[in-house]
Amino acid sequence: MKLTAPMQKIHRKIDEDFDQHLQLIQEYVRQPSISADGTGMRETAEKTRGFIEELGGKANIVPTKGWPVVYGELFFDMPKTLLVYGMYDVQPVEEERDLWIVPPFSGEIIDLQPFGKCLVSRGAINTKAPLRAFFNACKTILEVEGKLPVNLLFVIEGEEELGSIHLPEFVDEHVEELSRANDVFFPIPAQDPKGKVVMFLGVKGIIYLELICRGGEWGGPTKRAIHSSNAAWVDSPVWRLLWALNSMKAPDGEIRIDGFYDNVSLPASEEMTLLAKLVETFDEETIKREIEVQRFRKNLHGIELVKQYLYSPTLNIDGIIAGHTGAGTKTVLPHEAKAKVDIRLVPNMQTEEIIDKLKAHLQKNGFTDITVEIHDCYPWAQVSVNENVVQAMIQTYRLHGYEPEIWPRIGGSAPFYVFNQPPLNLPFVIGGLGHGSRAHSPNEYITVEGLKENEKSIATFLYQYASSQTPEGE
Amino acid sequence: MKLTAPMQKIHRKIDEDFDQHLQLIQEYVRQPSISADGTGMRETAEKTRGFIEELGGKANIVPTKGWPVVYGELFFDMPKTLLVYGMYDVQPVEEERDLWIVPPFSGEIIDLQPFGKCLVSRGAINTKAPLRAFFNACKTILEVEGKLPVNLLFVIEGEEELGSIHLPEFVDEHVEELSRANDVFFPIPAQDPKGKVVMFLGVKGIIYLELICRGGEWGGPTKRAIHSSNAAWVDSPVWRLLWALNSMKAPDGEIRIDGFYDNVSLPASEEMTLLAKLVETFDEETIKREIEVQRFRKNLHGIELVKQYLYSPTLNIDGIIAGHTGAGTKTVLPHEAKAKVDIRLVPNMQTEEIIDKLKAHLQKNGFTDITVEIHDCYPWAQVSVNENVVQAMIQTYRLHGYEPEIWPRIGGSAPFYVFNQPPLNLPFVIGGLGHGSRAHSPNEYITVEGLKENEKSIATFLYQYASSQTPEGE
Repeated sequence: MKLTAPMQKIHRKIDEDFDQHLQLIQEYVRQPSISADGTGMRETAEKTRGFIEELGGKANIVPTKGWPVVYGELFFDMPKTLLVYGMYDVQPVEEERDLWIVPPFSGEIIDLQPFGKCLVSRGAINTKAPLRAFFNACKTILEVEGKLPVNLLFVIEGEEELGSIHLPEFVDEHVEELSRANDVFFPIPAQDPKGKVVMFLGVKGIIYLELICRGGEWGGPTKRAIHSSNAAWVDSPVWRLLWALNSMKAPDGEIRIDGFYDNVSLPASEEMTLLAKLVETFDEETIKREIEVQRFRKNLHGIELVKQYLYSPTLNIDGIIAGHTGAGTKTVLPHEAKAKVDIRLVPNMQTEEIIDKLKAHLQKNGFTDITVEIHDCYPWAQVSVNENVVQAMIQTYRLHGYEPEIWPRIGGSAPFYVFNQPPLNLPFVIGGLGHGSRAHSPNEYITVEGLKENEKSIATFLYQYASSQTPEGE
Repeated sequence: MKLTAPMQKIHRKIDEDFDQHLQLIQEYVRQPSISADGTGMRETAEKTRGFIEELGGKANIVPTKGWPVVYGELFFDMPKTLLVYGMYDVQPVEEERDLWIVPPFSGEIIDLQPFGKCLVSRGAINTKAPLRAFFNACKTILEVEGKLPVNLLFVIEGEEELGSIHLPEFVDEHVEELSRANDVFFPIPAQDPKGKVVMFLGVKGIIYLELICRGGEWGGPTKRAIHSSNAAWVDSPVWRLLWALNSMKAPDGEIRIDGFYDNVSLPASEEMTLLAKLVETFDEETIKREIEVQRFRKNLHGIELVKQYLYSPTLNIDGIIAGHTGAGTKTVLPHEAKAKVDIRLVPNMQTEEIIDKLKAHLQKNGFTDITVEIHDCYPWAQVSVNENVVQAMIQTYRLHGYEPEIWPRIGGSAPFYVFNQPPLNLPFVIGGLGHGSRAHSPNEYITVEGLKENEKSIATFLYQYASSQTPEGE
């Protein structure tokens, strides 16, 4: 397979204009948009609406009970309509500012060994830079061809990092508009640090919750931290929260909530085929370097490690705080302790089922006073490798000279279920060329070269998708 | 017993001058002196030296490797010399600012129900206000009598809230000067919220340490928090710290470190006598209201509760922190977790012994990578009720119309061992009239009426002590 002449022309134009494209990307990531504390959210929604309008589309900032959704339409009377899902919010930078080598919103391009020139910024990979790159690619196609090969719908939310709390509400209210889409695309670069393309057909579900233990009828200080000499005769909300957490997960990593694993599926037959193929190229050393760990859990390797990643639900502590955490010594018995926890769900676990089981566990173990606050939750989603839109992305990678390593799902979560489940029932694909990493971490980055290749791959993908056959049975 | 005419004259003069005395107290607590972060420490040491000089004494700010000790001498060629131990530092106010009803260093006097007019301030009870009240009492005696009935030595440290780290060094270097003292006095108001005088003959020992778990060879992220999707195949330093802590203390409160309780003494015979008497007046309801708890550990009452307080070593979590503790959701697998812990030691537990046992526990349970940082530690100290200086204080209370409730020790810690153990071997007493509370907590307070009574009781005590008989055998 090789690229057609018109496609080569588009790619050359991306090369020519890339310096300007890169500036547009830098401008976008320099605008903070932290949904957790609200920094820059309105301004970023405005900017994002502007991107759609610059392409000639119509766009609205649609209010929700939380941050608004930027919704847009760009129609060319094409047979196929692709819904582009994205987000304009990013993760907070608290607790990690000291670890950044450039300010997290400076949008600086620096030489980051061993990757070469990189944009180092919050949002560099997750996902403002790739989102702007998508617009850059569309801009070039329009400049060269005067139209896109597909119609586009845009759903760009501002709460992905908060668990997409109000996205279902938006989708419910826009079913008619959204049902014009044939498929969903989430643009995000897919190459690992060595250049291998890694493709994920789905996501895990997530429950993000907070456990809070405060002194009360059961004991403990009720109003304020008290002098720690009282620890001899007054119980501690901190110890109590620790014991509650400990009761949920054993030091061997086993989650001890009754029935937690009941609905965990074994690999389906399509998944078995995918697994057999992916272990041929699976490169655990590169992953270890990327996430900077010295060993994986239980010292697993190869297929066992891959299965651990794919088929393990998790109970992770994102944060915990109580009492005196500043400099020096302060001898207090704290009156409250809080832990933020995320649970990742694999097929066929259900969010409500797991929340109920967690609450039942606390009841059963006597931790009736511990408050469970559900911040957000949504289910897993996964599509078949045979979906039209997935095959279009696979063909795109091959046209660019890459054979993708295909995983049934990623360990992370994204709210594809809102599109993939009824009433929309839309297949989805995640991808694009390019390499970036350290999402949710300091020094999040994307390579500059990868951004350029990403824009080219987006252009290729839109044409591949436009010309793809609807698979049998659809 | 009744107060002598000269004593009555001194008390009347305190009444007359009290408005001015109160202003001096307010000025002193308004000067922040947070040893944990260094705020105002130099200025407060200067002020404190000034207090001794105003009485006509000589004073120095003696440097240590930490905050300096204010050392002073005030000699009148009297037979007895009392060493006044005190501190000019206070606890931090971080993590509790929102809970203060007045700014913690505003030194405001407000109506605080049900106590009436109170000075509400950091340092109101612990211990800058009582320290200044001591100087006020001495000032009045000098104004009325021209001299004090005893010689005074002053050792006023700036690191009590840091565990008196460099006090032993100071004492070692000043053994000659300090050995001129016959006894030690730590001025701190001793009345409970209902006015009952509660007297403590000793203190528990303390070990303040920090446990830190970071990702490393054993697993976990090594450099930074990573995306929590990795929790499926990467271990967590937060869970590991929780499991380590859990291994040390069971949900029933039992400390599970091998040999931890080995050297815990049963009540000695003098203690048994004290206990039998103190339970007659022990008022657990008042204590519950004071520390704002709804029930004591294990629902204990009476003598069993008193024993729990006196004879239980503790393993308290003063603070714990890891990962994302700010607003909103951030899905990360943290790379480190930290807990600040204080252990209170009862007779005859030894600090080094317990540190060794804790470290051995971590080793034995496989937590070899968890770092133990000892911030400070010192042993318990306790004197007999028959000590000269203790009897002088008991007589003082009786002269003022109070029968003290006498406890073998308090649950808190203070570094009396530096005076009480060789080479100085000095008996000590803690006390004075007045009521204040919420040490180490927001809205720390002392009643204004109590401050006035405190000054009078200090004057009475100095004369009682001066005229007291040396007990048999000393």
